[in-house]
Amino acid sequence: MSDDVTVTTPVMQDFVFGALETDANTLAAERRRWLGVRHGHAIQPLDPVPDQPVAITVTLGRDVLADGVTAYVTTDGSEPAGRGGQAVNGFAVPLRRVETRFQPLYWDFAEVWQGELPGQPEGTHVRYTVEAWREGQSVWAAEPHIDGTVDARTVYGYVVDRVEPPAWAHDAIVYQIVVDRFAPAPQRWLEPAEMETFVGGTLRGIVERLDYIADLGVNTLWLTPIFRAASYHGYDTVDYFDVDPRFGSQADLAELVRQAHARGLRVILDFVANHCSDRFPLFREALADPASPHRRLFIFDPSFPHGYRCFFTAANMPQFNHDHPAARRLLLDAAQHWLREFGVDGYRLDYAAGPSHDFWSEFRAACKAVNPDCWLFGEVTLGSDALRTYVGRLDGCLDFAFTRQARLLCAGEGPAEPISRFAASLLRAERYFPADFTRPAFVENHDMNRFLWVAGGDRARLRMALGLLLGLGRSPILYYGTEVGLGQPRAKGHYREEARHPMRWDEAQDRALLADVRRLVAFRRRHPALSRGPTATLHLDDDTGLWLAERRWEDDRALIAVNAGAAAGHLTLPPGRWVDAHGRPAAGSLAVDPRSVVLLAPAAA
Amino acid sequence: MSDDVTVTTPVMQDFVFGALETDANTLAAERRRWLGVRHGHAIQPLDPVPDQPVAITVTLGRDVLADGVTAYVTTDGSEPAGRGGQAVNGFAVPLRRVETRFQPLYWDFAEVWQGELPGQPEGTHVRYTVEAWREGQSVWAAEPHIDGTVDARTVYGYVVDRVEPPAWAHDAIVYQIVVDRFAPAPQRWLEPAEMETFVGGTLRGIVERLDYIADLGVNTLWLTPIFRAASYHGYDTVDYFDVDPRFGSQADLAELVRQAHARGLRVILDFVANHCSDRFPLFREALADPASPHRRLFIFDPSFPHGYRCFFTAANMPQFNHDHPAARRLLLDAAQHWLREFGVDGYRLDYAAGPSHDFWSEFRAACKAVNPDCWLFGEVTLGSDALRTYVGRLDGCLDFAFTRQARLLCAGEGPAEPISRFAASLLRAERYFPADFTRPAFVENHDMNRFLWVAGGDRARLRMALGLLLGLGRSPILYYGTEVGLGQPRAKGHYREEARHPMRWDEAQDRALLADVRRLVAFRRRHPALSRGPTATLHLDDDTGLWLAERRWEDDRALIAVNAGAAAGHLTLPPGRWVDAHGRPAAGSLAVDPRSVVLLAPAAA
Repeated sequence: MSDDVTVTTPVMQDFVFGALETDANTLAAERRRWLGVRHGHAIQPLDPVPDQPVAITVTLGRDVLADGVTAYVTTDGSEPAGRGGQAVNGFAVPLRRVETRFQPLYWDFAEVWQGELPGQPEGTHVRYTVEAWREGQSVWAAEPHIDGTVDARTVYGYVVDRVEPPAWAHDAIVYQIVVDRFAPAPQRWLEPAEMETFVGGTLRGIVERLDYIADLGVNTLWLTPIFRAASYHGYDTVDYFDVDPRFGSQADLAELVRQAHARGLRVILDFVANHCSDRFPLFREALADPASPHRRLFIFDPSFPHGYRCFFTAANMPQFNHDHPAARRLLLDAAQHWLREFGVDGYRLDYAAGPSHDFWSEFRAACKAVNPDCWLFGEVTLGSDALRTYVGRLDGCLDFAFTRQARLLCAGEGPAEPISRFAASLLRAERYFPADFTRPAFVENHDMNRFLWVAGGDRARLRMALGLLLGLGRSPILYYGTEVGLGQPRAKGHYREEARHPMRWDEAQDRALLADVRRLVAFRRRHPALSRGPTATLHLDDDTGLWLAERRWEDDRALIAVNAGAAAGHLTLPPGRWVDAHGRPAAGSLAVDPRSVVLLAPAAA
Repeated sequence: MSDDVTVTTPVMQDFVFGALETDANTLAAERRRWLGVRHGHAIQPLDPVPDQPVAITVTLGRDVLADGVTAYVTTDGSEPAGRGGQAVNGFAVPLRRVETRFQPLYWDFAEVWQGELPGQPEGTHVRYTVEAWREGQSVWAAEPHIDGTVDARTVYGYVVDRVEPPAWAHDAIVYQIVVDRFAPAPQRWLEPAEMETFVGGTLRGIVERLDYIADLGVNTLWLTPIFRAASYHGYDTVDYFDVDPRFGSQADLAELVRQAHARGLRVILDFVANHCSDRFPLFREALADPASPHRRLFIFDPSFPHGYRCFFTAANMPQFNHDHPAARRLLLDAAQHWLREFGVDGYRLDYAAGPSHDFWSEFRAACKAVNPDCWLFGEVTLGSDALRTYVGRLDGCLDFAFTRQARLLCAGEGPAEPISRFAASLLRAERYFPADFTRPAFVENHDMNRFLWVAGGDRARLRMALGLLLGLGRSPILYYGTEVGLGQPRAKGHYREEARHPMRWDEAQDRALLADVRRLVAFRRRHPALSRGPTATLHLDDDTGLWLAERRWEDDRALIAVNAGAAAGHLTLPPGRWVDAHGRPAAGSLAVDPRSVVLLAPAAA
């Protein structure tokens, strides 16, 4: 009788979004969203161009009653300031109450206020804060962090420009490498005690495998962090301007980029702007000396467990104060350095939900100034509503939702949800996001269990997921080893990422799988419809689990035939002769094996 | 650091909305709201007048993917029908997709579709159903019930008219009587075993107390159900056309109405349209004979625990099939009967969330046809968003949110929440609801613990709540006995309503409280600003707990001085001389006792 559905269980078992998705945290996050003064970076248009006025929307929760709401705005890069409706630095823009909303999650009302920031010339960095005021009291608009904490005041911002994501990013097929683990000596599962250690992968080792990578058919490399760091994974930077000597030299990096480019492979580095290592020299000075001028680059505050804000509770990863000019300058300089001096093609931005949108707006402008064609995409493990706020601030965000849906559909013994849920989620995401906002898709990465582990080692399920990834995912990412059936020996634990065992170069490689992956990648590269075309449904049936989707782009056309069901299925193809990724012809009715995906294109005339 | 707030605990301890407000149920209800095809009676405008087109909005959850969404519409009162976009009875109105929304509560997308129903002549009963269709399959728009069940298909409707809530309802001060308990012989707490029995209150007993009621200053009586029923409370009707003989005769009712009217008291009856008693003759026939033509007046379905739909799980309260013409006719005839033949002035509509909005639209038209000045208000124990959908369908809804807020502020040893929450909730409700939609307010009723019980017997807290009720509540309701300090001997149990002990007419009456209530009521009746004026804040401070509110209406003006804090407070009054409900003068600075409310008006010139 009831249609009350708890959607979190299968995902929690599989950890894609982690604890964020539990009922308790979902409810807490939504309540936080509607308490206090929130902006959520809600600007309209999402990506302002020169001279375009920008509408800003702010909500006041049940806990904030105001006589007025005012935005203080600067256009010279300085930090806006004001009080009680009067600007102290920059100018004031009054907001007006446009709606009273009932908020069911706390059974009370919230208010929606709006204002309009005037259009600005190209290149303007607009920064603003928003105050709700009443009888001499202020509540400042502030955004909640993923860990549930809320700053006292958020500095918002955007850059007025005509920058668009690079065209090549839409056609990208990415190969993700954990540098320490891609070409090391050990050709075996690591012991638990080894998992957090350097096991020997280097940049030079990657150079030696570039032919292998190029033969896969991918056209982009993403290397996990290579800057001097405290750990094998590198997400705790010690020097943003040097290569970690355990991975090699700056010359090695230059060589890698040169050789990759020579093979048509672009190179994306991993950039950690949220935090550094506690061995980062400026942090060590700041920590040692409360009078240090570097102290303001971080967020020292006795209310934090370690006395300063960290990446979650990790004392070894102090967070930058991104509103401090010197901290921001340091990060922007570093990002520009590698683009300019080494010709790298972009960045995967770690924990992009940490730094503010204002930071990313300036970061992006700085990167594009050096390399207008660079690709910047963020890791934001939040819902699609949060992801969409990065339009105009980043070129895209990793598509964790695709991962979740693909694993729900493919990784279990049967689909965890009807095929129509997968289809609906995918089709609606296409409408929800601007088409040029890149959303690199993947079925596994370094922070979750390997797909094969979740699938109980069933490579048919992995093939199905890869069919979806290469047929329907945008800017697909292959995580190293996926293509040869690399799994993991143990479940992901709390401290140890089991998806980071060494790449296998020996007979452990599943060569049949490798051949299939090469065929899928090649098929995708031949068919721009699969990279850029909008998806349409020709047939969809939850009873059989069959879905026939079509994608078209300019003169190109491709079909994606999905059978999520347990029985062999038959799909009626559109008129004409078709050919699949293996080169097998098809026409009329297509037999589709249980739990499989077939990609098809019109046979050459 | 976190502002994660759970607001449900104090309320759950106090049972105003009951289980509806728990985290689990809030989340489940919100998820249901965004699954399937939902309309939520979301029409714009809320109350269509002749020739006005009506926009309808429908959402499709993550579980519904459609090629098209179509409304099937009739204007002759018949039930609309159609399939796959084609009308079979009435005409088809296509909807179009207007938005793709991310829904954080299930981390996936929903779609919003809209269409426009053409304007209609005055008096038209517009009925419609909405279908989402794809490849020969249908999902019908349907509304969840409070118990979490969802019908297969909801018939929506509205009546095009220029009907407005009666003017007198805004000035109403209501006295609520549980008929069996108002003037019975026992002048003591009932034993638990007696609570569910008739203890002897009658209509004639009420007539004998009409002078007492009129002396209170109220101008409206609401009697709990008086129709022939199975129980003392009467919410299980056996005959909608007769007075329960245990309460008296039809002649007694006529006499009561006559004598009440003679004293300037209007009379509101309690009408239970959702369900009847299982002793209702047509239901007995239907139950006994599966071939009975009366069976379709109810909802027999083996999937229900008792084989038919009930009021929640109460087998003795079978629910009507309100879409069946005979069931609807019976209820409308009954409602018209008492208005026409006995001159009653309106109905309090029990469990109004049970029958559909379409039912209430027709019900209201039928009542207004007999008595255009009757007042119809519903008991809807849902959030304000649900209440607002009754605009145009009913004249108003009981304001349970006021009850909740007033008890949170006043009933505990200190305020459970800052005074600004109470103020925000009240001020925002004024903006959220149309001003002419009546929202009768109360601090206790027959379904929850008596305020005094929750307040540990502290009559100062009760005085504070009554000050808020008469100073800020709309169309305030006094529950019998409140005015003399009637409490209860035990906490509300699951089956037994402890707020229904006999009214006391002996020395147990708190005469000082009674005198104060009379003063407050008289003050309110002298000041239409307190009945109709919008509320403005002159001063509000969460630290002291002080709030000075002002209400104005035409030439009238009143102040409400609230001290929710533990210390005596001082409020600066607007210039001029003021006088409180006790006739005490005030000017300049007003001292306000801790946890008290003072009503003030300009002193006569």
